[in-house]
Amino acid sequence: MRLSRYFLPALRETPSEAQIVSHQLMLRAGMIKQNGAGIYTWLPLGLRVLQKIEAIVREEQERAGAVELLMPTIQQAELWRESGRYEAYGKEMLRIVDRHEREMLFGPTNEELITDVFRSFVKSYKQLPLNLYHIQWKFRDEIRPRFGVMRGREFLMKDAYSFDLTPDAARQAYYRMFCAYLNTFSRMGLKAVPMRADTGPIGGDLSHEFIILADTGESAVFCDRELVDMAPPGLDLDFQSDLKPEFDRRTALYAATEEMHDPARFEREVPEERRLAARGIEVGHIFYFGTKYSAPMKAHVTGPDGKDAPVEMGSYGVGVSRLAAAIIEASHDERGIIWPAAVAPFSAAVVSLRPDDASVSTVCESVYGALLKAGVDVLYDDTPERPGAKFSTLELAGIPTLVVVGPKGVKAGVVEVRDRATGAVVEMSAEAAIQKLVGTIGG
Amino acid sequence: MRLSRYFLPALRETPSEAQIVSHQLMLRAGMIKQNGAGIYTWLPLGLRVLQKIEAIVREEQERAGAVELLMPTIQQAELWRESGRYEAYGKEMLRIVDRHEREMLFGPTNEELITDVFRSFVKSYKQLPLNLYHIQWKFRDEIRPRFGVMRGREFLMKDAYSFDLTPDAARQAYYRMFCAYLNTFSRMGLKAVPMRADTGPIGGDLSHEFIILADTGESAVFCDRELVDMAPPGLDLDFQSDLKPEFDRRTALYAATEEMHDPARFEREVPEERRLAARGIEVGHIFYFGTKYSAPMKAHVTGPDGKDAPVEMGSYGVGVSRLAAAIIEASHDERGIIWPAAVAPFSAAVVSLRPDDASVSTVCESVYGALLKAGVDVLYDDTPERPGAKFSTLELAGIPTLVVVGPKGVKAGVVEVRDRATGAVVEMSAEAAIQKLVGTIGG
Repeated sequence: MRLSRYFLPALRETPSEAQIVSHQLMLRAGMIKQNGAGIYTWLPLGLRVLQKIEAIVREEQERAGAVELLMPTIQQAELWRESGRYEAYGKEMLRIVDRHEREMLFGPTNEELITDVFRSFVKSYKQLPLNLYHIQWKFRDEIRPRFGVMRGREFLMKDAYSFDLTPDAARQAYYRMFCAYLNTFSRMGLKAVPMRADTGPIGGDLSHEFIILADTGESAVFCDRELVDMAPPGLDLDFQSDLKPEFDRRTALYAATEEMHDPARFEREVPEERRLAARGIEVGHIFYFGTKYSAPMKAHVTGPDGKDAPVEMGSYGVGVSRLAAAIIEASHDERGIIWPAAVAPFSAAVVSLRPDDASVSTVCESVYGALLKAGVDVLYDDTPERPGAKFSTLELAGIPTLVVVGPKGVKAGVVEVRDRATGAVVEMSAEAAIQKLVGTIGG
Repeated sequence: MRLSRYFLPALRETPSEAQIVSHQLMLRAGMIKQNGAGIYTWLPLGLRVLQKIEAIVREEQERAGAVELLMPTIQQAELWRESGRYEAYGKEMLRIVDRHEREMLFGPTNEELITDVFRSFVKSYKQLPLNLYHIQWKFRDEIRPRFGVMRGREFLMKDAYSFDLTPDAARQAYYRMFCAYLNTFSRMGLKAVPMRADTGPIGGDLSHEFIILADTGESAVFCDRELVDMAPPGLDLDFQSDLKPEFDRRTALYAATEEMHDPARFEREVPEERRLAARGIEVGHIFYFGTKYSAPMKAHVTGPDGKDAPVEMGSYGVGVSRLAAAIIEASHDERGIIWPAAVAPFSAAVVSLRPDDASVSTVCESVYGALLKAGVDVLYDDTPERPGAKFSTLELAGIPTLVVVGPKGVKAGVVEVRDRATGAVVEMSAEAAIQKLVGTIGG
């Protein structure tokens, strides 16, 4: 993408309404623009990050055997009356009346709707197990939306719903999502710790939140340090196998959010040097709630014994839009965002220090063309901005690698390769720079 | 994808509520499920088609120089008061009040919101031309939603908005989208005819609808037959060049929707044997409306002369979800859907006639594995259904090519390759089938 034809409206100053660093940096880097309380436009740079996060979530859901569909944003109130949640959900539900005076709502979550889809089509245990997910915009009418997309009202969520015949099978479905989540967050460069959690308005017997540690986190968390550095299950995990050992290994150690924290148990079970009291950001939340929705909504399946029973269910959420902010909270410095490679809006940028110098432009075009051809997501800063302003913007935006081309270097047959995370600057030939980038991040 | 782990709830009978063939086939093939009047869940098979349509639209927008962002579904009423459309839009606008009694709405279109984004960041002609687009769910509270996703209330639309300094530059932006649309629809296997159209509630001076001809089309259209078979501009079109000749060549011939039809002119300008009176489905609509929104909303830019003026705008819509139905209207037979290759939910299916026969399964697995590895989007029907039922479902769903593996064929060293569109059945070795499929449709 040529920057001269792109739309990257970076701001010079930090907007005063932004209290946390991710919100400040997303506004400054031209990733988002507010359109109302807790409602945002994702500007081109922000959308690229959102789409990369979404793609990773999708790949790991598919790997774990979940099947994608897409439910609408607008739901009928009557479905929520069947589960008993229509009145119970409270003011966070955005209620809507259409031109025919029918009661509707903007979905804050989808247990009722997916249960309705399920019961319309599935009648036999032979069609199980089934895990259906979608990635769709939700709305929760928070009383005080704040912190940018971290706690917005309109937000993008991946929510999956599992359906099984027995509680044991449902627990395996839960373990599959548990493992898939660890892999998902790890691929985004995050260390997410699963913590036993309260089930809240979703309900159920078993629930874990996936928490990223960050000083600016919204909630206090307590865990065994060993959990923080435990490796994820890995992309070669066999999701058809029994995943209880993977789950047990990660839940044997102490980890709890504030609501579930038991200080006496914490001190008893965790050696002092391993006790971690920190702040965290919730990026995923999974629930096993059995027949809480299937029983009242009569989503029954026939078992091998010929008997009907309500299906066993769980639900599994990832805050896709929130992740963009959470990653920034976990990875930035005083100059701006430091994107992990997998979610960077562009993997690299070619920076022309003198767009009016034909020899510089020739080198830029050849590096840019070669990177594009190799499938590298590359931005080409071909604008007449001053070099200092260019570097500030690209560092603010967190582009992992810059290939800087100037007249002196061109004469000497070199370009500069700058690494955003380490600050390292290395001179090499344009060909070597291309090879280096294609080797590291090429498609 | 193994069908045994997939979710493809095909129906045996045609649902009585569906009046048009695309609606019937989408329900029967398990592509969509209704969740309320004009509101649908896209089941896995339907979503795959939607995503393929979306990807083609996105690629052609990018090729034409448009830049993607993503605006929210919920908008503030106050913006629509600035343009004067809040009251004028009428009952099709879904109006919402939040917990703080703020007036909001579910966006039926985005002229106001994008103008607000634009005026926040762009002040100078140096940042022009600019074309920003998004692909987002919209809501129009139709009084009588019908025909499935053809005229739904919640629908997916691509809408682009162009910003230019002068009317001449804005017309070039219009021509770019005009050409991009012809390429877009052509890639989906459609013949879309641009027709001079009424501007309706969007307003403006110049407008074209892109119409697919189909007997079940909602509106009468009149055009010169030559237009129907005119080749699209092509993917190698230089979008930086003057596109007026491309536009003129396609608008010199008579083409009009019912509202704009002039029978006298039609007979005068078109020789009798080329006069086509038909029915059509609108799949795209483009508008040039100058300063209709930028003037009242004060979206001004400074020109090279240092003077401020409201920016010249156009907007460009593609009905992404409607296209799924429109393609079916244009391409089906008595057995079901015939997907053009580019939008087929799966490019091919491997069909096991005897999943309980080890030799059959070995061949199926090897063909399936080789196709997956080559990047072919392939479904593997490994279920114990009867062959007849399998063929009905896969033909109904319109999978372009089936590779059929049965015990007799395995003994003779052959598989059957069936072509959905032509009905041709050819026997060949498994290796030849793989080569044929990878050669035609491989990634």
